[in-house]
Amino acid sequence: MNAKRFLDLADFTREEIVELLALAQRLQDRPEPRALAGKILGLVFFNPSLRTLASFQAGMARLGGTSFVITPGHGTWQLEHRLGVPMNATAAEHVREGIPVLASFCDALGIRAFADGKDLAYDLAETNFNAMASLVDKPLINMESAMNHPCQSLADWKTLDDLAVAPRSKFVLSWVTHPRALPLAVPASTLHMAAMRGHEVVVLRPEGYAMPPQLLAKARAAAAASGGSVRETDDRAEALAGAQVLYAKEWGSTTYYGSAEKDADLRAKLPDWQVREDWFARARPDCRFMHCLPVRRNVAVADEILDGPRSVVLKEAHNRLVAQMAVLHRLLSATP
Amino acid sequence: MNAKRFLDLADFTREEIVELLALAQRLQDRPEPRALAGKILGLVFFNPSLRTLASFQAGMARLGGTSFVITPGHGTWQLEHRLGVPMNATAAEHVREGIPVLASFCDALGIRAFADGKDLAYDLAETNFNAMASLVDKPLINMESAMNHPCQSLADWKTLDDLAVAPRSKFVLSWVTHPRALPLAVPASTLHMAAMRGHEVVVLRPEGYAMPPQLLAKARAAAAASGGSVRETDDRAEALAGAQVLYAKEWGSTTYYGSAEKDADLRAKLPDWQVREDWFARARPDCRFMHCLPVRRNVAVADEILDGPRSVVLKEAHNRLVAQMAVLHRLLSATP
Amino acid sequence: MNAKRFLDLADFTREEIVELLALAQRLQDRPEPRALAGKILGLVFFNPSLRTLASFQAGMARLGGTSFVITPGHGTWQLEHRLGVPMNATAAEHVREGIPVLASFCDALGIRAFADGKDLAYDLAETNFNAMASLVDKPLINMESAMNHPCQSLADWKTLDDLAVAPRSKFVLSWVTHPRALPLAVPASTLHMAAMRGHEVVVLRPEGYAMPPQLLAKARAAAAASGGSVRETDDRAEALAGAQVLYAKEWGSTTYYGSAEKDADLRAKLPDWQVREDWFARARPDCRFMHCLPVRRNVAVADEILDGPRSVVLKEAHNRLVAQMAVLHRLLSATP
Repeated sequence: MNAKRFLDLADFTREEIVELLALAQRLQDRPEPRALAGKILGLVFFNPSLRTLASFQAGMARLGGTSFVITPGHGTWQLEHRLGVPMNATAAEHVREGIPVLASFCDALGIRAFADGKDLAYDLAETNFNAMASLVDKPLINMESAMNHPCQSLADWKTLDDLAVAPRSKFVLSWVTHPRALPLAVPASTLHMAAMRGHEVVVLRPEGYAMPPQLLAKARAAAAASGGSVRETDDRAEALAGAQVLYAKEWGSTTYYGSAEKDADLRAKLPDWQVREDWFARARPDCRFMHCLPVRRNVAVADEILDGPRSVVLKEAHNRLVAQMAVLHRLLSATP
Repeated sequence: MNAKRFLDLADFTREEIVELLALAQRLQDRPEPRALAGKILGLVFFNPSLRTLASFQAGMARLGGTSFVITPGHGTWQLEHRLGVPMNATAAEHVREGIPVLASFCDALGIRAFADGKDLAYDLAETNFNAMASLVDKPLINMESAMNHPCQSLADWKTLDDLAVAPRSKFVLSWVTHPRALPLAVPASTLHMAAMRGHEVVVLRPEGYAMPPQLLAKARAAAAASGGSVRETDDRAEALAGAQVLYAKEWGSTTYYGSAEKDADLRAKLPDWQVREDWFARARPDCRFMHCLPVRRNVAVADEILDGPRSVVLKEAHNRLVAQMAVLHRLLSATP
Repeated sequence: MNAKRFLDLADFTREEIVELLALAQRLQDRPEPRALAGKILGLVFFNPSLRTLASFQAGMARLGGTSFVITPGHGTWQLEHRLGVPMNATAAEHVREGIPVLASFCDALGIRAFADGKDLAYDLAETNFNAMASLVDKPLINMESAMNHPCQSLADWKTLDDLAVAPRSKFVLSWVTHPRALPLAVPASTLHMAAMRGHEVVVLRPEGYAMPPQLLAKARAAAAASGGSVRETDDRAEALAGAQVLYAKEWGSTTYYGSAEKDADLRAKLPDWQVREDWFARARPDCRFMHCLPVRRNVAVADEILDGPRSVVLKEAHNRLVAQMAVLHRLLSATP
């Protein structure tokens, strides 16, 4: 494992992830309340958060360290990220100053910066996040970027382990609807995680919401190494037949990326993309329901699912704390 | 004392409260800076806070523990609390996910959720708070709900102890004016505390602002056990005659609960309900002035009172820290 | 050093500042991770912050203490500071309650409260900050007031030490442009620091932006004691000839203090007041560029400067942490 950065599961081998999750389990079984004594984690949130905000603070505290939170635009200046522009609008500071300054105050930095959502190639290249990452000379954690959410995926991998979900089983990543076009970070990251874990991965989505080819190619390379597979379909019945896991996620149209209007037109015809119990008719009886949260009840997912026995969403969320403690320990502890 | 929850003084016997305040005093006299080492307190604020926000963080730190703060809508998604609704408005997450997730990250949770202020029966039933409380399997603290603010009342009880205010003395809880209709949590909680402490409690308020019968009945039951009494009046001179304590508080019309307009019409005729020195003409010479803060100077209370010798509002506020440390110790410490 | 307050470099002798910076260096060289164990710092921000917010939290943590943050108006009530007014507008609490209450929860308090920006004499008298300071009976830190930012200046002094900038060398404090009229706190504080350190201080600014005579007189008194000097000019070429340091800062018109409109008219004619490499034509070849941050790139300062070899802005920012740790240690540690 790269001793300095946790940015993308794809930066690690399958074995390294397995080791990291073993560390997570060890820290659960035998707490190390002084492992990170004296260490300071800086947390920068360009976008809202609940789980990430709470679990990173709690995780540092459980390991004896401390953290501080910066939310640009809330009690802190807005930060500009474009290069070369005259800063005569609302942003009072540039990330080229703000980020290295914050890094200089702490021992590790976490950054959350969602996709711009205007240009797909720009976001796929992780332009904004990488520009900031290049300014940080401390251990760095991706707390969700344009196309990645490795902390969520690490936690989800652990959840699948905890539930003894077999690597070869069928894992359906399904688009669900939402009032707005949401970023691709979680579906992209989930796709890669499931492929890397060796699943038969099926991306189920309506026309207009196909995964970008680059992400599919990346996931297929991981699947090739792990013995898994990756395919896309819009046939819900076929996709869910024999499924062991249904992972639901909202995301914006990739065909009309950046056009809120065309996206809205498209999804106006897709209210049926809300997970209900009848989706599971041909799935395995013990098929699990996963979602990274937050979730819009009775829009993306019906109450009957979230309150029913298939749902493991609270377990996934709790594993955010468990998995991230291993990441923090690996990045910051003097002893392995 | 229920080892797991601090939600309402009425859940405890008088003796249990006395013991809890003895613990508060002990922690003042002999600090225990490692008592809660490794423990994490989650603090969820659906409404603004100053004393509660600062004192719970400071209290955990003084006992060696740590805390994190979540303020839905400020850097965190808004949380929906209604059941069964399609979540297609602004709230991105439901309390049914958000609250148990946060509880799973910490060792104890504090929640502040003010009254909806629309339907009195709904608020009297603590519908919103109880719905959240039912989702928490960790020690839980009520940091002010629709009809209760037990941390304030515990601190106020200690303030009365510190000042050696005799249990049988006359305690006047008086309505004072405010630009808006405020919730009933503090007056309800204060009424119960004073009755439970054994005072001759007089609720002084104009027509339209009577205490709900349920709250009076609950307080009278406490008074019966403690040797105190509870009555209401709109006669200021009579109420304050012989008073040992004047506790001022703003609250909305109970006759027109939920109607900002009718409440405003009513209070437009009541500008005289601002505490001034002349209110104390027939009170005991050493009559104390109490208020939970925040207070609108020269609206609810004149400067001459807040800056004068009767006021103990800063002592009350400091006792928030003192009293809450005892609550945290009781809920989280392995040793009594 | 006054054991209780860090409000203005002018409250200290040159020798006391040198000692304080020696302590800062000692804490860098030989960390004291338990020096402030059990101590609590309250941080009150009436205005936005990035460096101050992060560095004070990090500094307390590095010394083993903890901190809490209050940002009036963000999750906390707005606080009124005027005396004697009926509080029937938006502020729900007065600083006369809020500040002493917060002070009673912690071991030291930091307050940031920018200038009102309406009346120069009012701001020069530090009316708002002093009103709050008079309510605090704990160690107090000025985290930027109307006319002072001693933490920034202490860090800048250390930066000049680190770079071995000779006391007698020429130090140019230059006005630069900005979309809005900014406060005088940093230029006032920098002027005093440079004079106190013994520099040949030249304030370079266009007509309409002269330093208030009171601030010049105060700085000249410091210069007289240190062997330095202080003068003002609007002649850029002359000012920068032989300069060893160019410290750029934005501030509002002092001639038209409080008039955003007249200030805007004035600065519309001054777009040339943006630091570029050609400003340094006659400066010393190793002339340094300083700025307290945040800075508007390509408005106040060109990219070529901030990304070039002259800039020491990140070093200045990091020294905020280093310098403030010495302040915290001095105010809160039992041992020197």
